Amino acid sequence: MIRWNVFPQGTMRSSRFAIALFVLLLAGPQPRTAFGEEGMFPLTELKKLDLGARGLTISAEELYNPDAVSLIDAIVNIGGCTGSFVSKDGLILTNHHCAFPAVQAASTPEQDYVTHGFLALQRKDELRARGNTVRIIESYRDVSRDVLAAVTDTMAPGDRARALSAKTKAIVAETEKQNPGRRAEVAEMFAGRTYVLFLYTYLRDVRLVYVPPRGIGEFGGEEDNWMWPRHTGDFSFLRAYVGPDGSPADYAPENIPYTPKRWLRIQPAGVEEEDPVFILGYPGRTYRHRTSHFLAYEQDGRLPAVADLYEWQIATILRMGASDRGVALKYDARVKSLSNTSKNSRGKLQGLKRLQLVRTKRDEEEKMQAFIMADATLRSKYGTMLQEIGDVYQSMNTTAAFETLMDNLRVASARLSQALTAAEGARELRKPDLQRETPFMERNLARTKDDVRLALRNFHEPVDRALLAEDLRRLRNLKQEQHHPVLDSVFAEMDGKGGPEQWLDRLYAGATLQTPEAVFALMESSPELVDQSADPFVRLARRLAPVYQMLRERRQDRDGQLNKLHADLVEVKQAFQKTTFIPDANSTMRLTLGKIRGYAPADATVYRPFTTLKGIVEKATDSEPFRPSDKLLTLYRERRYGKYAHPALGSVPVALLYNLDTTGGNSGSPLLNAAGEVVGVNFDRTFEATINDYAWSEEYSRSIAVDIRYVLWVTEFIGGAQHILRELGT
Amino acid sequence: MIRWNVFPQGTMRSSRFAIALFVLLLAGPQPRTAFGEEGMFPLTELKKLDLGARGLTISAEELYNPDAVSLIDAIVNIGGCTGSFVSKDGLILTNHHCAFPAVQAASTPEQDYVTHGFLALQRKDELRARGNTVRIIESYRDVSRDVLAAVTDTMAPGDRARALSAKTKAIVAETEKQNPGRRAEVAEMFAGRTYVLFLYTYLRDVRLVYVPPRGIGEFGGEEDNWMWPRHTGDFSFLRAYVGPDGSPADYAPENIPYTPKRWLRIQPAGVEEEDPVFILGYPGRTYRHRTSHFLAYEQDGRLPAVADLYEWQIATILRMGASDRGVALKYDARVKSLSNTSKNSRGKLQGLKRLQLVRTKRDEEEKMQAFIMADATLRSKYGTMLQEIGDVYQSMNTTAAFETLMDNLRVASARLSQALTAAEGARELRKPDLQRETPFMERNLARTKDDVRLALRNFHEPVDRALLAEDLRRLRNLKQEQHHPVLDSVFAEMDGKGGPEQWLDRLYAGATLQTPEAVFALMESSPELVDQSADPFVRLARRLAPVYQMLRERRQDRDGQLNKLHADLVEVKQAFQKTTFIPDANSTMRLTLGKIRGYAPADATVYRPFTTLKGIVEKATDSEPFRPSDKLLTLYRERRYGKYAHPALGSVPVALLYNLDTTGGNSGSPLLNAAGEVVGVNFDRTFEATINDYAWSEEYSRSIAVDIRYVLWVTEFIGGAQHILRELGT
Repeated sequence: MIRWNVFPQGTMRSSRFAIALFVLLLAGPQPRTAFGEEGMFPLTELKKLDLGARGLTISAEELYNPDAVSLIDAIVNIGGCTGSFVSKDGLILTNHHCAFPAVQAASTPEQDYVTHGFLALQRKDELRARGNTVRIIESYRDVSRDVLAAVTDTMAPGDRARALSAKTKAIVAETEKQNPGRRAEVAEMFAGRTYVLFLYTYLRDVRLVYVPPRGIGEFGGEEDNWMWPRHTGDFSFLRAYVGPDGSPADYAPENIPYTPKRWLRIQPAGVEEEDPVFILGYPGRTYRHRTSHFLAYEQDGRLPAVADLYEWQIATILRMGASDRGVALKYDARVKSLSNTSKNSRGKLQGLKRLQLVRTKRDEEEKMQAFIMADATLRSKYGTMLQEIGDVYQSMNTTAAFETLMDNLRVASARLSQALTAAEGARELRKPDLQRETPFMERNLARTKDDVRLALRNFHEPVDRALLAEDLRRLRNLKQEQHHPVLDSVFAEMDGKGGPEQWLDRLYAGATLQTPEAVFALMESSPELVDQSADPFVRLARRLAPVYQMLRERRQDRDGQLNKLHADLVEVKQAFQKTTFIPDANSTMRLTLGKIRGYAPADATVYRPFTTLKGIVEKATDSEPFRPSDKLLTLYRERRYGKYAHPALGSVPVALLYNLDTTGGNSGSPLLNAAGEVVGVNFDRTFEATINDYAWSEEYSRSIAVDIRYVLWVTEFIGGAQHILRELGT
Repeated sequence: MIRWNVFPQGTMRSSRFAIALFVLLLAGPQPRTAFGEEGMFPLTELKKLDLGARGLTISAEELYNPDAVSLIDAIVNIGGCTGSFVSKDGLILTNHHCAFPAVQAASTPEQDYVTHGFLALQRKDELRARGNTVRIIESYRDVSRDVLAAVTDTMAPGDRARALSAKTKAIVAETEKQNPGRRAEVAEMFAGRTYVLFLYTYLRDVRLVYVPPRGIGEFGGEEDNWMWPRHTGDFSFLRAYVGPDGSPADYAPENIPYTPKRWLRIQPAGVEEEDPVFILGYPGRTYRHRTSHFLAYEQDGRLPAVADLYEWQIATILRMGASDRGVALKYDARVKSLSNTSKNSRGKLQGLKRLQLVRTKRDEEEKMQAFIMADATLRSKYGTMLQEIGDVYQSMNTTAAFETLMDNLRVASARLSQALTAAEGARELRKPDLQRETPFMERNLARTKDDVRLALRNFHEPVDRALLAEDLRRLRNLKQEQHHPVLDSVFAEMDGKGGPEQWLDRLYAGATLQTPEAVFALMESSPELVDQSADPFVRLARRLAPVYQMLRERRQDRDGQLNKLHADLVEVKQAFQKTTFIPDANSTMRLTLGKIRGYAPADATVYRPFTTLKGIVEKATDSEPFRPSDKLLTLYRERRYGKYAHPALGSVPVALLYNLDTTGGNSGSPLLNAAGEVVGVNFDRTFEATINDYAWSEEYSRSIAVDIRYVLWVTEFIGGAQHILRELGT
């Protein structure tokens, strides 16, 4: 499932997957470059596209018009996913998995909406969707000149990274001051070259309208995640509310449905194979403009390390949860997140190998190097550019294992994580707001605290301890050149105190930060009080603090180097290829277009682009995640398909495939036909399409949507929600 | 992999899979009936087939002529598999997995033919293939009248079963006496109706000629077993030898290659999609003529019980083998056999559900019952027939769990198994030969002893004990109505002696039958000495003996009932359907014909009928069973395909699919084109085709062969065995 997403500078993830994401952000390299042929077009590029030639009947102006209402005004970002307005009363169609945390929060053992689904028969029954906000684009403008004025070509790399960060924080603060109630974000389009300031409205009162039962919305679960053939009814309906005066407001009973500028029409007849389709949404992050050095680092260093470590953690949690249902529930989201990432990593590794991407990029770069060397000016300016990029990744490679484990250490154990948060917070909160680390800025502090609360709610000491112990064991087993004196002193202490187990006994026995209040109290005290804490986790956090500070600086240094080098790279590449490029995905709105189309995932295997109800029955077992409801089985047996049967397939289509260019963050994006009508809800890519992050491939890049016919069939026949169908006008 | 096979009465399995097979034989029901539309034609039915209309160009007479040499004279049974003569010097083409036990026996740590493969550059280098014999049909004749003279319609069921068994044993003994050096077998074609006596010549000197490396011959291992897309080079070449006088002889250096009456031509150009093909071979056993009661028993009783029990045993052995390579090696064959059967069971369960076979059969039977009731004569004779069949299975259902565990008990623990063999042998060996249980008849005793030797060689106490303990635990947890007083007394003893673990401690500490010689000595002593043995396993075996005797009699009783009822069923069914039937597979030679064709294994998924080298590279990892040799990867990279590339696929085809009707025992069968030339070597069915044992289905029944182009490419490019290609005349 396309669950994780990467947010532009200055925002934070709202979902429960923030932890795993955070590791990815820390572990993965940051800036962007400019190769490629991909199709995630930013709004600024739409005018260059010949939509008619691509099979669309909707006009460019109807699609996007900065001076008037257009289709893109119906597209929102909802809690890290994409959603779309589908009625004049603020009804939003998005994924089941995007609404899931809110459904879980609204459920109790007596009212188990997670299992049975939720349907509001009247507006007043619509339930608060906690933690969800709806983000609407108000405007954007290029601020490249402003941002780049903060740096010079001769700055030290770390200083360059810090200067860019400080400048964008200042622009955001200034913009938000001028636009009360709105949030600003600066998106880096091309590292060191192009920066765009977006101004967003956030609707804070979001409610659940219809969420199908888990047996439909999560059918197939982790097993089918990233897979085709797929049979997940991954959709839900929510509604945005505003205050009685029409402006964004916190949840209140007297609030009224929001009236969007534009909403989408639903096409209940769906689409056919080879029909043109397009998607508007918020793809999170791609890395296509990176060099072969980056890909080699991913292939040989980061991905295998992450997959191996996460798979070990999954196995450990599952083993410990097997005998304790409470543990299983607490760690359910963590296991999902870890599985999602490790399976994604395995998919990428397969794709890198199959497409031989490192070799292909290397061949391209050799030609570019020859082009540089053939021109005296280019040679003097860029002769060592590729080599310098290679050097940065070379240095990352040598410390990849250490960094992966250090990043994981601060999330694997909630105890250690809270101690680090308290210790770092105590230091950061002293600083002026704009100089703080992002999680501790005033605008983000509430979210940071929410994360602490969540982590402590899901704390279970034996699992926490097992994960901490294994991470430390792995750190200890690293090759000597990856050892760090601080860690070595910790290991020496362990040995001096009777070995790791006894050392851990004492650590957990002395833990004091057992409630969010205790964490916040220490965080809001002072660095001096932190220094005096006798809590062994706080003491461990203090010992590790310089290591994390070193890592932070090392990364700023790399970021600064790559920011400059990648800016040069775009320059050279444009001269070499005599063309311009589309920037890598960066959570800003993009359009991608293509066709409904199957593919061949492997030798002698062909995947057709539509699944049907028949496949649900084929997969059905007596246990989750493959247990369809009796109602669905009965409807299938009685062939009660309503008007939603696919004529040739003779059954209701459930999911469909297309060769569009999507990535994480596109979850919930409406799949639109040539006329711009909704024919599906995007929710995943295939296993082979995890490679999209590095390269789009006609051979393997396929994304997956719930077919609109299944959305409507479930809403009508399973949910019995005729009033929603009326509101949709179908 | 189609590894297991069922042998006609009077023979025993030579391979290491005999143990699991034995359980299947005991656990599975025995006789046969007569519904169906399948295509495993016995030799006697060939004259009814219009081969030309089915696309064959070979004439019926060329294919099969009892009065002259014909194609079937090139087909042999080799160690439970099928093989074919492919040169005038007795060269045999069969599967890698059929030759594997012999390759393993010929290997040493220094000469590791298992891993690296084996090639004899000259005749004199050809290695003895221990345990292999080549069986050739000499003649056959109908002996139904003779066999059925031994029974009357009024006999008690158990007496009927025993009388049939005694009669066939007598016919075999008499025939073998008249034909020294040959072996006879009586095959039951239709239970209680048709019996055929086959006379076979056995060639006892078989040698290895070329066996590809394990990375080719077992590529994909258990993971790919029963699966498509497949990339296993499951073939090998062996040679049959005879004494200098041309008659069957034991291995001796002076023996000479056997000259077969007929050998097959190889077609190096292979076949195309939709080409007609056929197979001649020895399919083991099918159950298509059974009633819905049998299928319900399989679906709800036996298959889930076997799959669950075997999966537990696999997990246990793998866990215990994970830390001890020696254990892993000892139990390698057992794990393979258990996996093969449990995966096969899962496939059958899926197929039973998908095709709704129980319901379909039940509908048919309802119509037949109406047909019976509509005719006074039929009603009086057969009015209760279907009900009576149902009653037999009903009684089997109620004891299925108990019987499965009791059957497994005698193979799970080698210690207990040997004690039972010794105790039963001491009793049986006193009897006249023809009255003994099959394993203890003179003609089978050597094989029985070989099995004892093998089991003791692979004994490892902790695993043996874990499997024994779990089987006993499961027996103890059965519902009260499935308890047996003898077992209950054993459990009571456990409790009295400090619980199962302490009881097992004493059991294993006192075991004396630790060598084959000790087992044989006790077996050849006397029942009285067995009674005096202080060995706790022997004492346990003695306590269990009456339980096993009860099971044996219960099964004879059922067999007797079903033998009679199924004979009636054929009678009625022929009247009802106004047609005759083909008997179920019973390890006698059969022909099946059809087309090279892919299929749709699941919703939105299509399997194409050819895999290629590309798929091997796609699947390749750094570890077994997906590690192709560097040589293969280099040849692929350099596109050195010789003349073996498929024109449209642009690569060497590796495996292929066809809709023929095969089952276990068809392993190694040559796949023949319209002209009767070899275009592949059959080695498996797809997961969906495990259902073949109950019903052939155009939708799901697909079998898998190694493409002859891959056989030849590997032999030439990997093996460098030009002399074999010359011998084949390609």
